[in-house]
Amino acid sequence: MAFDLNLKNLVELALKEDLGWGDLTTWLTLEPDSLGRAEIRTRQALVLSGLEPARLAFELVDKNLEVELFQADGDNLAPGAVVLRLEGLAQSILMAERVALNFLGRLSGVATLTQRYVKASQELGLFGAKILDTRKTTPGLRALEKAAVRHGGGHNHRFSLGDGILIKDNHIMAVGSIEKALKLAKNKARHNLKIEIEVDSLEQLREALEHGAEAVLLDNMDIPTLRKAVEIVKEFFKGRSRGLLLEASGGVNLKSVGKIAATGVDFISVGALTHSAPSVDLGLDWLDS
Amino acid sequence: MAFDLNLKNLVELALKEDLGWGDLTTWLTLEPDSLGRAEIRTRQALVLSGLEPARLAFELVDKNLEVELFQADGDNLAPGAVVLRLEGLAQSILMAERVALNFLGRLSGVATLTQRYVKASQELGLFGAKILDTRKTTPGLRALEKAAVRHGGGHNHRFSLGDGILIKDNHIMAVGSIEKALKLAKNKARHNLKIEIEVDSLEQLREALEHGAEAVLLDNMDIPTLRKAVEIVKEFFKGRSRGLLLEASGGVNLKSVGKIAATGVDFISVGALTHSAPSVDLGLDWLDS
Amino acid sequence: MAFDLNLKNLVELALKEDLGWGDLTTWLTLEPDSLGRAEIRTRQALVLSGLEPARLAFELVDKNLEVELFQADGDNLAPGAVVLRLEGLAQSILMAERVALNFLGRLSGVATLTQRYVKASQELGLFGAKILDTRKTTPGLRALEKAAVRHGGGHNHRFSLGDGILIKDNHIMAVGSIEKALKLAKNKARHNLKIEIEVDSLEQLREALEHGAEAVLLDNMDIPTLRKAVEIVKEFFKGRSRGLLLEASGGVNLKSVGKIAATGVDFISVGALTHSAPSVDLGLDWLDS
Amino acid sequence: MAFDLNLKNLVELALKEDLGWGDLTTWLTLEPDSLGRAEIRTRQALVLSGLEPARLAFELVDKNLEVELFQADGDNLAPGAVVLRLEGLAQSILMAERVALNFLGRLSGVATLTQRYVKASQELGLFGAKILDTRKTTPGLRALEKAAVRHGGGHNHRFSLGDGILIKDNHIMAVGSIEKALKLAKNKARHNLKIEIEVDSLEQLREALEHGAEAVLLDNMDIPTLRKAVEIVKEFFKGRSRGLLLEASGGVNLKSVGKIAATGVDFISVGALTHSAPSVDLGLDWLDS
Amino acid sequence: MAFDLNLKNLVELALKEDLGWGDLTTWLTLEPDSLGRAEIRTRQALVLSGLEPARLAFELVDKNLEVELFQADGDNLAPGAVVLRLEGLAQSILMAERVALNFLGRLSGVATLTQRYVKASQELGLFGAKILDTRKTTPGLRALEKAAVRHGGGHNHRFSLGDGILIKDNHIMAVGSIEKALKLAKNKARHNLKIEIEVDSLEQLREALEHGAEAVLLDNMDIPTLRKAVEIVKEFFKGRSRGLLLEASGGVNLKSVGKIAATGVDFISVGALTHSAPSVDLGLDWLDS
Amino acid sequence: MAFDLNLKNLVELALKEDLGWGDLTTWLTLEPDSLGRAEIRTRQALVLSGLEPARLAFELVDKNLEVELFQADGDNLAPGAVVLRLEGLAQSILMAERVALNFLGRLSGVATLTQRYVKASQELGLFGAKILDTRKTTPGLRALEKAAVRHGGGHNHRFSLGDGILIKDNHIMAVGSIEKALKLAKNKARHNLKIEIEVDSLEQLREALEHGAEAVLLDNMDIPTLRKAVEIVKEFFKGRSRGLLLEASGGVNLKSVGKIAATGVDFISVGALTHSAPSVDLGLDWLDS
Repeated sequence: MAFDLNLKNLVELALKEDLGWGDLTTWLTLEPDSLGRAEIRTRQALVLSGLEPARLAFELVDKNLEVELFQADGDNLAPGAVVLRLEGLAQSILMAERVALNFLGRLSGVATLTQRYVKASQELGLFGAKILDTRKTTPGLRALEKAAVRHGGGHNHRFSLGDGILIKDNHIMAVGSIEKALKLAKNKARHNLKIEIEVDSLEQLREALEHGAEAVLLDNMDIPTLRKAVEIVKEFFKGRSRGLLLEASGGVNLKSVGKIAATGVDFISVGALTHSAPSVDLGLDWLDS
Repeated sequence: MAFDLNLKNLVELALKEDLGWGDLTTWLTLEPDSLGRAEIRTRQALVLSGLEPARLAFELVDKNLEVELFQADGDNLAPGAVVLRLEGLAQSILMAERVALNFLGRLSGVATLTQRYVKASQELGLFGAKILDTRKTTPGLRALEKAAVRHGGGHNHRFSLGDGILIKDNHIMAVGSIEKALKLAKNKARHNLKIEIEVDSLEQLREALEHGAEAVLLDNMDIPTLRKAVEIVKEFFKGRSRGLLLEASGGVNLKSVGKIAATGVDFISVGALTHSAPSVDLGLDWLDS
Repeated sequence: MAFDLNLKNLVELALKEDLGWGDLTTWLTLEPDSLGRAEIRTRQALVLSGLEPARLAFELVDKNLEVELFQADGDNLAPGAVVLRLEGLAQSILMAERVALNFLGRLSGVATLTQRYVKASQELGLFGAKILDTRKTTPGLRALEKAAVRHGGGHNHRFSLGDGILIKDNHIMAVGSIEKALKLAKNKARHNLKIEIEVDSLEQLREALEHGAEAVLLDNMDIPTLRKAVEIVKEFFKGRSRGLLLEASGGVNLKSVGKIAATGVDFISVGALTHSAPSVDLGLDWLDS
Repeated sequence: MAFDLNLKNLVELALKEDLGWGDLTTWLTLEPDSLGRAEIRTRQALVLSGLEPARLAFELVDKNLEVELFQADGDNLAPGAVVLRLEGLAQSILMAERVALNFLGRLSGVATLTQRYVKASQELGLFGAKILDTRKTTPGLRALEKAAVRHGGGHNHRFSLGDGILIKDNHIMAVGSIEKALKLAKNKARHNLKIEIEVDSLEQLREALEHGAEAVLLDNMDIPTLRKAVEIVKEFFKGRSRGLLLEASGGVNLKSVGKIAATGVDFISVGALTHSAPSVDLGLDWLDS
Repeated sequence: MAFDLNLKNLVELALKEDLGWGDLTTWLTLEPDSLGRAEIRTRQALVLSGLEPARLAFELVDKNLEVELFQADGDNLAPGAVVLRLEGLAQSILMAERVALNFLGRLSGVATLTQRYVKASQELGLFGAKILDTRKTTPGLRALEKAAVRHGGGHNHRFSLGDGILIKDNHIMAVGSIEKALKLAKNKARHNLKIEIEVDSLEQLREALEHGAEAVLLDNMDIPTLRKAVEIVKEFFKGRSRGLLLEASGGVNLKSVGKIAATGVDFISVGALTHSAPSVDLGLDWLDS
Repeated sequence: MAFDLNLKNLVELALKEDLGWGDLTTWLTLEPDSLGRAEIRTRQALVLSGLEPARLAFELVDKNLEVELFQADGDNLAPGAVVLRLEGLAQSILMAERVALNFLGRLSGVATLTQRYVKASQELGLFGAKILDTRKTTPGLRALEKAAVRHGGGHNHRFSLGDGILIKDNHIMAVGSIEKALKLAKNKARHNLKIEIEVDSLEQLREALEHGAEAVLLDNMDIPTLRKAVEIVKEFFKGRSRGLLLEASGGVNLKSVGKIAATGVDFISVGALTHSAPSVDLGLDWLDS
């Protein structure tokens, strides 16, 4: 799949960065043909993500390394869990170790933080709000980080500017009004895309409703305003199935996310999932041979 | 410089990720030839890093955009500071905005966290310990993140396995002893590289000293042990200039780093600088035209 | 824009194909510094597309060539119209000529055929059916060909499998029923994508309606069946705004497209726009210097 | 072979275009591990071309897919013929389907049209004129389309400006005369290339003959003039083996090609083979498992 | 031109090799904004080649460097001649210096050795034998080395297996006889390529003559045999213009090449031109500012 | 390893150069499915280098070719030794032959010349001077040529400007003095790199010693001066282990290298190893099947 084709390039890039002209220390100290066995284990509780790039790192360094996977992306692991086991040339294992761990640590960090947000959003009860990521991802790692969000139980917003329509404040200013922006979009947009628009007040929400928005991003609203927004929408569609989705965004953190969910919005988007998730700790341990 | 040649590829990769088939919303709502002016401003105090990839993002989208820089990498900025100003086609500005901000937020995050570590390392006085990064960097962003560490006042450890020798526990196990590992390395290593070795006890430190190590990584030692290590080295070289550098590593955080520095080690390496720095907040504001 | 970044690679690929080790004949016969002026002109009536890759071909061969554009993509041109004028090194003009013409001829061919379909779809009156392209594009040229469709007055269906949901017969078979397929999709699909499903009978259409499809592709239906499909949908939504789009597909040609449009469907998708459009004729003429 | 190295890049490019962020619909509806069997079959009579890129498309998406070929490039197939059979993960088959079909449809279209020209050129008897392609190929697909021409029974003209010499009108104008152009070329050209020159009158043909042209392209001449040209050449070489090849070009179509062949020229070059061949129809059918 | 497009990639590759993570020494010792002026000068007599990659090396490191060229490829230079002058950031000059000199030294080495062969081939008089290169070039540098051969006064044999036909002993063995090989080739080969065949005896030469070879490579023949070969060909064509070219190859050196030329062959191919030319010496000198 | 990832690109580049549109001659004369067996043998005594790119050339052309290696890089081979044996499609063997031989001939040439220097450096006794390469390598082949130097018994100097510090005359001039340059470097340089400085007089050497240089390059000094330099250093460190390495450079050839070694320097760097090593001769012989 296309995903894989790009992934190989990314892992190669990471390997070239880390290996440079080659692993000098390993070449100085290990026999080229000495064999080894090792495991990658968690050093803390985490939600796993990044198995595929980790596996690829070992495979690209040495296609004869045996890589046995013991877990799946999305699994909740306790500290000390064995993620994968390696067997083959000791030099090859050492050469790919850091790159594999860098992918696992970072992506599992995203998945783990996402799960915390998902759980926190349900603290006050199950209101159905889904946790969404944003486009605030690491350059080059978008597909992997968005997969990590899914592994943590989150959902993906659009992948790029090319596969979703989200009319923001700057677009509205450029066009002149929410009404005009929505008319333009409905007229020319690809038929299989819903039209989402950002609003920062309840008046704007009402304007968006009247002119056919299919989703609305409620930007930086406090809890009472969000609650009111949900009511306005219910009112508008009363008696009919609700024809508009509500996304809350801005200033979301682990403390506020449960209250936001309780307002009844459909989605809560959280930039921190990908731009500020700390890495989690995994390490490579050698096994007696 | 080589750096630039790779940088262009990385920014292009990020742009392709974010633009996909093109910025649908902007195309729907903005006239192709409408002009705009905008500024990127800080939304919090931070140490700046990432100006070059940010500038490149705008330039690669539209070489006719004017990008005026108001700050330099490494600058300490207050909230609200203007980082750069843009003038040109409004569509072009919107198309590159997210990628530019993603680079700035992430890299300034690394620089800002590094500066906090540097300052914390000096809380108990100036002992001369330098803050070093590690190879725990984001895949694809190593050169940028290591530059960000410098912008924050830190120093770089080796860039890759190919430009530094660091004999770790696994290498020692493979060879059999610290003595053998150092002999092998001194015999065959490139003449312009110093030989560094990882030890996890004071006995190992003594063995490394006797067999000519030029730098020693003290792994996961507590404060008293680190202090003792520094004494052992002083003792060994007494009367002569100290011929061995000491690097402390493992379990370093903002609370412990000052005490570690006070032990008299030469370097403290901190993986968190690059693997767990939260992004800092910057935004793009439109100017009245 | 991302589009441009890929476009440069494609035009370079085409130039490398056509130049190989260099233009032997031109090198044998022209002085390296002799200057020339030339124009690309239409040799038949056509709708123009491909100006950007044509311009790039000349620019990549010689950035000092002056390329003046006299038309815009989407323009209807008579035979003999001047598309662009070149001035600079004669060798450079000759080296890029064929590649520029290959892009213009092929893409204008797509635009020209699309316009014929658009006009034919309106022969029996204006019913509002839009002409859509498909994924049956030339490998490597999808973005350009989809732009050419727009230049000819057509509209784009999804660009890739990654930016639209279209549940086809094979998917339905795999899941077991239209009902199940729609439930799965509505539950897990990205919130900003509408769910389209392919049906080949009116019974399937009814099932899709009942289970919330947002668009339906009517595959290979004859005119009376299409007409009936439109009625069924009207009936279903009576009194409410119509919440489902109808796309006709299969066996569409210049004779049938008007009748299909007259049935009241919203879209007609035509593979031939991109997979079978004959090139149109343009040529390069030298000007007296 | 070099051909393969480039081919892989091209098929990857096509897959990336078509898959984007991944096959959303298939992921929503099919179990990741469900297996499937399918066949690609012709939907009309055709000359086959494109097996290799089609096979690669499946292999690059999933190297574990089994792809069994039932035909060879160049085969004449009846409607309904099985081209290849697939077995493996159902998701993988669906993800590569469109790209494989796009290659097969387009390239078999070229081969099929070429065969029609070859047959039409023999309608009035076997005169030995070979059908040649031109450089009017699809950007990026030249090697594949020139192979398709061979599969249809045609022959290849030069592949690029770097592996053949063809002095055109613009070159002659630049140099001043046919005589001078031929002298320059014979003096400096690579020894293993024949020198071909374009003429548009019988006087020019005579000049080319006198000054040692090894092949002559007769541009846009009518049948009587072509016939006369053949006589002139015969006359010139009488008693000796004919030392010059004649190529007719310009305004060739399926009606005229037989008459042109009957004039006795050696080659007839036809741009339409590659720039205007309509795709032929093939489809993928699922088999009961 | 295609040449340029590939050249840029090659020079970038060389810069990345030489710069790695950046020019540490220069960064440590030079101010980023200090300016400098420098010249590249010859340190021995030589024939110049490689100006274009040298210029590109400086331009790719810093597009604002001014590079003034004082010579042209193919010029005969005395020791101490100024090849080019640089002005701009001192750091940029130092960063590109080695790569520029490596290209110039190596390619001028090829040009200089070629000129020695050309002159040596004329020591016994002007017999018209041209010096040809072979495919024994440095991986990645074929186009540049073949240009260097031309700069030294030599001529190019085919550039690749794809733009010339040369039937070698292995091909003849595979087919069974020279006669069969030539028939196959004449029947199927592209019309604009001459058919060359390798022979290692005068009997084989006669067989090649009789079956229409257009060029013959005389492999490893001594002077008397070469002389006899020339006579045989003259005899064969007596009274007519000679319709076959003779190329001598194998065991050619600066002592033998004059005698080989005197036998009357048309070409002498010399692998050493590209596979064993020693670099010539050039250096970069700083100018007082 | 990173090395391999780059190597594949380089061998692909070489194959594309050599194959162009494909091996016309082989296609004309050999049956596509005819099998063959062949060996690559030495035609002269040599030190082998380049097995890996040679093997890759065959593998990339046809992954089903069997390639059996009979020797290892670094082996001293007599004329006629079998380097590797091939079995598989005859066309595949012929298509990769030239590229494989070009790598082997060139790299074994470097290894063979290096060994001659190593032996010549020991002619007057074993003084311990190691032969070093330089950055005067072929663009694109640095890693391979530096490996070839090791295969010949030499050692590597830094790989790039990014993994070693060597302060040259231009840097000293820019800073003002050796003292200042060394202070700057010691203060800011990466802790695991030794600081080497170039001097061209004994006074400069003394200055370098006093200010803590860790290695000194003695540029273009005659034998007596080199001898004196060694004494000065001994004197400086008397009673202590010698804390500074001496490298002689400039004007080294096979005659002088033994005398230079006898002066007691630690290293002798020789540009000619990589910039002027003549290729050695290897050839491919077919075996009876």
